[in-house]
Amino acid sequence: MDLETAIGNGCARDWETVDARDVEPVRFAVIGLGWFTKGRALPALESSDRCVPSVLVSGSAEKAQTLADETDGATRGLTYDQFHDGVARDAYDAIYVVTPNALHLEYVETAAEYGKHVLCEKPMERSSDRARELEAVAADAGIELMIAYRMHTEPAVRRARELIEEGYVGTPMAVDGQMSQRLLDRINPDPEQWRLDENLAGGGALFDIGIYPLNTARFLLDSDPITVTGTTSSTHDAFADVDETVSFALRFPDDVTGRCYASHNARQASSITVTGTEGQIRVEPAFFQEQRRTLHVSRGDGRASIELEPVDQMLEEFDYFADRVRGDAALYPDGEHGIADMEIMEAIYEGAEEDRWVSLE
Amino acid sequence: MDLETAIGNGCARDWETVDARDVEPVRFAVIGLGWFTKGRALPALESSDRCVPSVLVSGSAEKAQTLADETDGATRGLTYDQFHDGVARDAYDAIYVVTPNALHLEYVETAAEYGKHVLCEKPMERSSDRARELEAVAADAGIELMIAYRMHTEPAVRRARELIEEGYVGTPMAVDGQMSQRLLDRINPDPEQWRLDENLAGGGALFDIGIYPLNTARFLLDSDPITVTGTTSSTHDAFADVDETVSFALRFPDDVTGRCYASHNARQASSITVTGTEGQIRVEPAFFQEQRRTLHVSRGDGRASIELEPVDQMLEEFDYFADRVRGDAALYPDGEHGIADMEIMEAIYEGAEEDRWVSLE
Repeated sequence: MDLETAIGNGCARDWETVDARDVEPVRFAVIGLGWFTKGRALPALESSDRCVPSVLVSGSAEKAQTLADETDGATRGLTYDQFHDGVARDAYDAIYVVTPNALHLEYVETAAEYGKHVLCEKPMERSSDRARELEAVAADAGIELMIAYRMHTEPAVRRARELIEEGYVGTPMAVDGQMSQRLLDRINPDPEQWRLDENLAGGGALFDIGIYPLNTARFLLDSDPITVTGTTSSTHDAFADVDETVSFALRFPDDVTGRCYASHNARQASSITVTGTEGQIRVEPAFFQEQRRTLHVSRGDGRASIELEPVDQMLEEFDYFADRVRGDAALYPDGEHGIADMEIMEAIYEGAEEDRWVSLE
Repeated sequence: MDLETAIGNGCARDWETVDARDVEPVRFAVIGLGWFTKGRALPALESSDRCVPSVLVSGSAEKAQTLADETDGATRGLTYDQFHDGVARDAYDAIYVVTPNALHLEYVETAAEYGKHVLCEKPMERSSDRARELEAVAADAGIELMIAYRMHTEPAVRRARELIEEGYVGTPMAVDGQMSQRLLDRINPDPEQWRLDENLAGGGALFDIGIYPLNTARFLLDSDPITVTGTTSSTHDAFADVDETVSFALRFPDDVTGRCYASHNARQASSITVTGTEGQIRVEPAFFQEQRRTLHVSRGDGRASIELEPVDQMLEEFDYFADRVRGDAALYPDGEHGIADMEIMEAIYEGAEEDRWVSLE
């Protein structure tokens, strides 16, 4: 089998452990009904044969119920207060938390109280302290907790990881990643959006999109940085409290180094590259959902760029979570995995603030 | 004219100011006859209609004369001592210094004494102190001094620079560069080579190849970093005294950031990417001479990868120098330009050693 064929197969759903026909689907209470939920999450849940979006939770009872009426599988719309009060708690098995970062903890506390599993968006919370509290709450209640890193179930990224593990690049030496877009000018001009509010978000470009190259680097190398530094900046007034742009540098064990860039004010671009002693693997485009993924590989005189069959990344992520909830296999991106990103990102901010490298050990 | 056509034209020889037919060729004394001189420099000089390799200088009289006998346009082979003594000094107008870094100064001193112009390989010397001394010697003698940055006359890089200047990427935000190869395992296994000797080289991967992404970043942005940091490491015993691998981060004015990687122990790879608010330009492969250069550009929905007609980079560089020696236009990569790289690289080492960002202001 040549390389192109081998890569073309990808690693789609190589994580499945449970046959969907043998188990009940996981019924979700979806917490937070913004554009991402409506545009990405609910369509994926509706199309899944492992998941059902049975309960929708929002600040507005009317908004929640209207959306529930339009959503396949949804039986109830609830307000946040009703959710906390346990209304309709027999109608869901798990919650999907897609609120502003600083509100994640309170919904996980309620889920823990009622014994519901949790799929929580990244970054895990607004600070590592709150992330640790969140993890402890889930652990004490014995519920499953997964942080929603959709790159972990993206076939192109999984194939890259497998190739690296198999030694395709030789000994990994370096990782380079980028994620950038024009948030205010192209995507959402609202200066009141929660991403710009430090109290709700905890951080700016680093927390929102820098976490993609950071976490994917950790995932591809199966290794965590031990020393980091960075640089932050902002141009728009709306980014007065959080970083609009971040550049960061990472030192991993065994002299592996990383360099990443994320900006809410640069041309849309996304890539991640691992260079080793023998070869190089790049996924580009890498992180935006609407784009097909291409795996660029080279080793010796060989070189190939293979466009993979696109998948619905949210569907893959939800189904992976459901597989782990219904089966016995362990979740990879658990609470400890999410806490590590929070600690690394806080250390990057500290390094940027103090013009030095910060140790995580 | 579409973008592909516009780029396809490149910027080949847009720097020419003097018609070669109107002036005498510049006769060079070539100092240092290693594999690079024999394989790259002399063939370029032989094929030039602006330059002649009239005198060849080496440690061995026999080696110098044998090579002179085989080289078109060469009339004399000299020892280093004979060169310093002024033997055959009427037979050359300029010197090309391609010795170990720490010996550059002494040959420039002699050239200055005899009023000969200087094309000096990069890095300029083994330290910024000696580079400043070299620059002062040349300035006092009123001779031309150019540092041999062949990317400055590479048409793909010049076209990238022109596109950036014209606003193709919008406001430049970020630059990312890499140059890596397997020096000991693939190119030259000799543990006694001068590149590994700190006294002769002054630095390792950073001085030898990291200078490519560093200097090309400066050239593309027409801007110099103001704060830097880095990380160095070595695996082979032969790299006990100098860095085998370097990762560095740069802060330029106006919140532009840079990230670069260079290694003598990683797969051969070379690229440089500039991301702006509106677009992105990448040259890849970028720095190795034997490869065709491709310019990858994207802006809005437009995206193109254009392979440019290859040039002999050494010929372009020599002819540019000859054009400036015979004409009135100023050299771009002059002594001050070379000193800046030396200062930046020393600051990167300082930052790596002390785990902090180092200011160059």
